[in-house]
This record gives sequence, structure tokens and C-alpha cells, in this order.
Amino acid sequence: MPFPNTALTERLGIRAPIVSGGMVWASGWRLASAVSNCGGLGLLGAGSMTEELLRTHIEKMRATTSAPFGVNIPLLNRHAETHIATCIDMGVPVVCTAAGNPVLYTARLKDAGITVMHVVPSARLAQKAASCGCDVVVAEGVEAGGHNGRDALTSLVLWPSVVDAVSVPVVAAGGVVDGRQMAAALALGAAGVQVGTRFAVTQESSASAAYKQACVDAPEGQAVQFLRDDTPVRALRNAYVTDMRTREAAGTDAETLRALRGKFRAKQGIFEGDLDAGELSASQAVGAISQVLSVANVFDAFQRDLARAIRRLTPA
Amino acid sequence: MPFPNTALTERLGIRAPIVSGGMVWASGWRLASAVSNCGGLGLLGAGSMTEELLRTHIEKMRATTSAPFGVNIPLLNRHAETHIATCIDMGVPVVCTAAGNPVLYTARLKDAGITVMHVVPSARLAQKAASCGCDVVVAEGVEAGGHNGRDALTSLVLWPSVVDAVSVPVVAAGGVVDGRQMAAALALGAAGVQVGTRFAVTQESSASAAYKQACVDAPEGQAVQFLRDDTPVRALRNAYVTDMRTREAAGTDAETLRALRGKFRAKQGIFEGDLDAGELSASQAVGAISQVLSVANVFDAFQRDLARAIRRLTPA
Repeated sequence: MPFPNTALTERLGIRAPIVSGGMVWASGWRLASAVSNCGGLGLLGAGSMTEELLRTHIEKMRATTSAPFGVNIPLLNRHAETHIATCIDMGVPVVCTAAGNPVLYTARLKDAGITVMHVVPSARLAQKAASCGCDVVVAEGVEAGGHNGRDALTSLVLWPSVVDAVSVPVVAAGGVVDGRQMAAALALGAAGVQVGTRFAVTQESSASAAYKQACVDAPEGQAVQFLRDDTPVRALRNAYVTDMRTREAAGTDAETLRALRGKFRAKQGIFEGDLDAGELSASQAVGAISQVLSVANVFDAFQRDLARAIRRLTPA
Repeated sequence: MPFPNTALTERLGIRAPIVSGGMVWASGWRLASAVSNCGGLGLLGAGSMTEELLRTHIEKMRATTSAPFGVNIPLLNRHAETHIATCIDMGVPVVCTAAGNPVLYTARLKDAGITVMHVVPSARLAQKAASCGCDVVVAEGVEAGGHNGRDALTSLVLWPSVVDAVSVPVVAAGGVVDGRQMAAALALGAAGVQVGTRFAVTQESSASAAYKQACVDAPEGQAVQFLRDDTPVRALRNAYVTDMRTREAAGTDAETLRALRGKFRAKQGIFEGDLDAGELSASQAVGAISQVLSVANVFDAFQRDLARAIRRLTPA
């Protein structure tokens, strides 16, 4: 059974309704290009790139795939403005904005002929994104690795409420690591899924081998939140995260916690593989990831598990 | 399209794979009996009953339905031992134990011919329940109203991992308010769903009219957690919950918070309808509940939405 055609595959001109998350330190051209070549939409993670590096990765995408691809830009990033300009200048087909106000750049991107996706943690913000012209909204539940919305809405609650709230295609994100969850997302009305951690733990991901192995080794419940009432982050429990959570429980103020976190914890954890002091961003569903696969193998597994899940719902 | 037959309907001898949560102050005989008469499994919520009251409600069940039903018993409740004895004495068909160690009573209940279900918040505890003889496990995600597991695993993450961990039928609970989420649960491998808040907000529920209306009025994101690192509880945000969360963020210890909560907050909120100082237990998905329905109407809506969701997954 092939992947289904949906409003997302039609809107983006792709073959499989699977978007790879634009993850800092993991989503370089090798990962994004492999995803696009498998029929999904590969996203470059500009959040950990300088202008120069982003240009290099976009050029590499052009050289290695003829399929559509995109760039994820966290709008609170200090390079956001430059990255937007770079994407327009280089004619990137899709830009996915996140962690910020979609009103800022959507019209400018659309005027340049770019398809705009925006990541939202609530139906309220989904409506805001759709009404300022975003073509697709990515509804990301609190299961997701890295930064989470403060509302803490889970995927099961968030996805159908976003589907009800907007008429543009909805991409379901947060906790999707296999084809069963993809089936659930489609049943709930989503037009596709965004997959993060599962792609961070592939051969093509630029994350360190140590980070990938830590994800493979992580038991159930290992990816926890901290800074929950301020700017929630989900990462594997380690010495650093345990320290942050202990301080948080003792009433330490958010400003102090943010200062302790610093600016390069995710680089230290994901890219440099410091398993004790680094931030190992990961989905709550990381416990279900048991090996480092190739991107092609991930697509095959999704296709197989999706077909099985659909058969479960439609007994002969 | 009728409800599907599953391992749960076969194990329990019911027509629809829907269990109503045994909710304190809401799940009396009127609600449980209506659910069983609609083809599901109605559960009495013994957690808010004395021995005498539980006996009266079981007698009313016998008088108003010939279909299977059950009793939910929180094992940390001070009446747990007596309630177990009452259920054995009165030949209740199904007992669902929760919030405690399934090793304590499962063998005794099974010896009496009772089908035993047990509520778990993790795959690890699901394995423990299955290995001590429970017939069914209820995998309850952090979306659920009332007490949550400390692991905070969401339904999307928890359900498939419990399905993978045990061979007994898995009932998916936490965040299920309509037939779309039921379709998602079945796609993820569950054999049925447990529905709480949606049934607490029915005509047959013994919750107060004020509580039901508060649930209907609740916007997205209104049902939040407090006591998160100790004994997490999910309820509608009100003066009481906001106070608890403020104290928690300031580092107040769990013992003090538990004392402030006291023992009768849920009664005050759900049964007496004190919207400011009471505890209004509710699912994170409460925002999707827009009216007080009859139990029969809830079943009709589930059936319709489940069928639509399945059709979405299987285009002609």
C-alpha cells in the first residue's frame, strides 16, 4: 500500500505526507535531501546555522535532490531576518516558521512565491497563522523534543482541535515515531505528519553518534520537560536536566534558569555529544526508537506500520 | 457502521468497546447503567462511596441493566479493602483497580470469578499488571482528568508502548472525547477506549450542573496540572488551582500542598459545584466538549465520528 495522497501532498507536490523536523544540529542537507528523495519534505534546520552555512546547505540541497524541500526558521533566533532574506534570495520552495509571530514574515515570503508553513501549539495560534496567510499549519503537541508550547497541549488533544479550527492542511507533530502514530494523525484529520526525533536518529542526521546512541538507549519516560512555566524544553534526563528540574522544583526563578541553560546547550548535547552537561533534545516517544536507521528504512517502516494500522481499523 | 468487535468486547461480553471511567462524584448507577445499556461497560466510581453507598449503587445496577458492568476502586482509598470484599460478595462482573499495586487483590478477585482491569500510566506498570493476572489493562495518558501518573506519558506515546508490552487487551484512556480519538486508539492497537470527562458531562452523570457547565464553557488549555512532581492532578484552572500552581512554582513542598488540597476538594468542586474553591477534575480535551448530552447521544456521536475517521483512512 503506497502512502496516501492528502491535501498536504497536493499542496507541496510531494509523494509521502511526511515532513522531517527542521532540528537544530541534526537537520543538515544530508538528512533533508534524503527525506525529499524518499518522497517527503525535508527541512533544513536553520536555527543552528549562520547565513553562510545556510547558503551552503541550500546549495547542497539543489545539488542532491530535485524534489521540493524547505527551511525551518525559529523566528526568535537572532538570524531570523537574515535567514528569511536568504530563503527569498535563493528561491527556497517552502519555509516553515516557528517559535514566533507568523504575521512578521508570511506576506513577504508569499509575495516571493514561497509556500509558508508555521508551527503552532494551540488552535488559537493556528487560527492566527491561517488568517495571516500561512498555507499549512504544523500542530505540535507537547510530546515534541526541544522547545514546547507553554499550554502543554498533547498531540491527541491538539491535532483534532486545530483541524477543526482552520481550513488549511494540518501537519501533525509531536510524538510521531512510527506509522501507527501516522495512522492516528490521519484518523484525527491531519493531512500529514512531521517527524523529528526519529529522523534525528538516522545515519544521515548530523547529530553526534553519542546523541543517537543515547536516544536508542533511552527507556520509557526518559525525555522530560524543564523550564515548564516559562519556556518549556524537552530533553533526555541527564545530570544537566536533573539539576535544572531540581532547581525549578525549589522555586528558582526562570531568569536564573535560562542563564544556567545558556545558549549552546543543544550544540553541546546533540552535536558535540556531551551526554552529561549537554541538552539532548528528544521526543517523549524516544523510548520507542531502538536503532539508528537510514532515512529510506524509516520511510519503509512508516509505510509498513501505517498499512497495518489501517488494516486493523478495517477488518474484512 | 456498527462499533467494531475487538478483544475487549469479546473478553467482557459487550457490544461497544467503550468503558466509562469510574469517576469520583460523577459515576453513579444512573451513568454506569446507561453506558452498559448502550452496549459499553459502565463503571461505578467507588472512590467517592462508603461501603453502604456502593452496595446501594450495585443493587441499582442490577435493577436497571442486565448487561455487564463494573466498579472502579482506587487502591489507595481508605475503603479499598472493604470495596473489594463488597464486589466479591455481590458478584460484580468486572472490577477495575487503579492508583495502587495490582498484586494486592488481583488473585483474590480472579478466584471469585471477577474480570480484573487495572489502570496503568506506563508500559513498565502494564507488564506488572499483566504478569499478576489482570485480564485487561487500561493505559491512561496524562491527558486524563483527576490523578495522573508522575511519568506524564501522553496517550499517543503510552498507548502503543503498552500494546507492545503486554498480550492482554489494552483499553486506551486519557483525552478521548470523541470518535476520532477512538479511531486513533484502535489504529494504535488498543482494543477499546475508556472515556471519562465526556461522560461526566452527560445528563446521567451525578456531577453538579455547575461543574458540567464549567466543562462546557472551558476553552482550550483550561484543564491544567498541579502537584506535578508529587501526585499530579488535572483540573480546570480556577482560583484554587491557580493558587496551588503559584505556590508550587515558588517551591512550596509537596506535603504543604497536599495539606492545602485536603481530602474533599473534588467533592466540593464536582458534586457541590463550588467553581472557585473546588477541584473540577477534567481531561485536557475538555475544550472539545460543547454541550451536556445524554449517554445515548454520546454513543451515537462516537459511532458517527469513528466511522468518518475510518473512512478518512480508507479512501475509495
